[in-house]
Amino acid sequence: MLTKNNTKFIKSLQLKKFRQKEGLFTVEGAKNTLELLNSSYKLKYLILSEDFLNRHQKEINSSEIEPILVKEKELSALGAFQTNTDALAVVHEKTPLTYHSKSFDLVLDDIRDPGNLGTIIRLADWYGIQNVICSDTTAEFYNPKVISASMGSIFRTNLYRRDLKEFLAENKKRKIYGALLEGKNVHQVKFKANGLLVIGNESHGIHPELISLITDSVTIPKIGHAESLNAAMATAIICDNVFRKH
Amino acid sequence: MLTKNNTKFIKSLQLKKFRQKEGLFTVEGAKNTLELLNSSYKLKYLILSEDFLNRHQKEINSSEIEPILVKEKELSALGAFQTNTDALAVVHEKTPLTYHSKSFDLVLDDIRDPGNLGTIIRLADWYGIQNVICSDTTAEFYNPKVISASMGSIFRTNLYRRDLKEFLAENKKRKIYGALLEGKNVHQVKFKANGLLVIGNESHGIHPELISLITDSVTIPKIGHAESLNAAMATAIICDNVFRKH
Repeated sequence: MLTKNNTKFIKSLQLKKFRQKEGLFTVEGAKNTLELLNSSYKLKYLILSEDFLNRHQKEINSSEIEPILVKEKELSALGAFQTNTDALAVVHEKTPLTYHSKSFDLVLDDIRDPGNLGTIIRLADWYGIQNVICSDTTAEFYNPKVISASMGSIFRTNLYRRDLKEFLAENKKRKIYGALLEGKNVHQVKFKANGLLVIGNESHGIHPELISLITDSVTIPKIGHAESLNAAMATAIICDNVFRKH
Repeated sequence: MLTKNNTKFIKSLQLKKFRQKEGLFTVEGAKNTLELLNSSYKLKYLILSEDFLNRHQKEINSSEIEPILVKEKELSALGAFQTNTDALAVVHEKTPLTYHSKSFDLVLDDIRDPGNLGTIIRLADWYGIQNVICSDTTAEFYNPKVISASMGSIFRTNLYRRDLKEFLAENKKRKIYGALLEGKNVHQVKFKANGLLVIGNESHGIHPELISLITDSVTIPKIGHAESLNAAMATAIICDNVFRKH
């Protein structure tokens, strides 16, 4: 059973302030909860509707904690998404990782929109990109909209928060690709397997102080009239070009 | 000056019910308003901050209607986006068009998320795709989030609402490409210049009743683990492959 205090506590985690104070965040919905149960994240609470429990006995039994059963309407009142009548988990944040990778990774400079960050994480997971390095100003990883948009991919992706000027300087021996409006046609770039791809802010692009650290500017050819593409879409198109067999 | 009745009327247009009753919608923000002024859409009201008027005298003078000046905080209270302190226009919907195109066009089967619809319209405009044909269940064209996400591209794109089964049957002599999880590798497809690309619903993909009308299924190769890609991102990747010079 869920006490009044539990309910209040879980609802408080919708605010970044409380997530950061407690080192906890919430995961909502069937897809994300199932992916979570399949990951190494540690759970504090697992709250389910009876229907969800019946449908996913096996996955739920494999979890180390005892689920709390609630009515569907209690569930939808508990989280950020009122359409969720399946499951909600309260999860411990992971300790920040130290970056050691030499594979192709993404660098996000000031991606503010949680939906964009979430879909970019999902995209990274699609292409097998394991690491996403984010500027301090990029959206919070554990914002409910990031988790929802990532569709479970957030539990398979290593996320780092770094000063990007410092990070790129440390990695200056690698190719550092940047999505810019006046670079080489992305269709003609031969991407290196250990490269980094820098994606800039939705409105202002890559910060001027990072531009000088970019070794290869790449551009998606335009035929029509839109001034630019959505940052997440541009990331998708470039990644498809990075990983295609020419 | 803006009367109390005007304010009430404009605010009512945030609801679909009133937009449809009046045949009017609102456009907010600097970028979208400037693109609107450059289009053939007819304005009912043009409401500006003094600062915006001073920055864009020329574009505003070219409009056929007299702008109404308001304080910035009045502007941000008037629309759906509180960050807007530049401009808000009330615009007449266009009469639905009849489709006659033989160029490469997009067909959206049940794209529910207004942000996805808006960014797909922006993408279409980037690639010079002039027509986007939408199922009845696809998001409303004049939802403020669609207009905002389109970044002005909605004023350069022809939007149609059709029964897609009927529409595809009428166009059965053309190649009808569909984004599906088990189709031909998109990197190996030679797209026809008069083809149609069908994109399915965010959760359920293309409706079964349309699948039989698809002549060529295409798939984006996956390397990692995500189950699927966001619908708008998948559209972006496929369009880049349609328009690339191999």
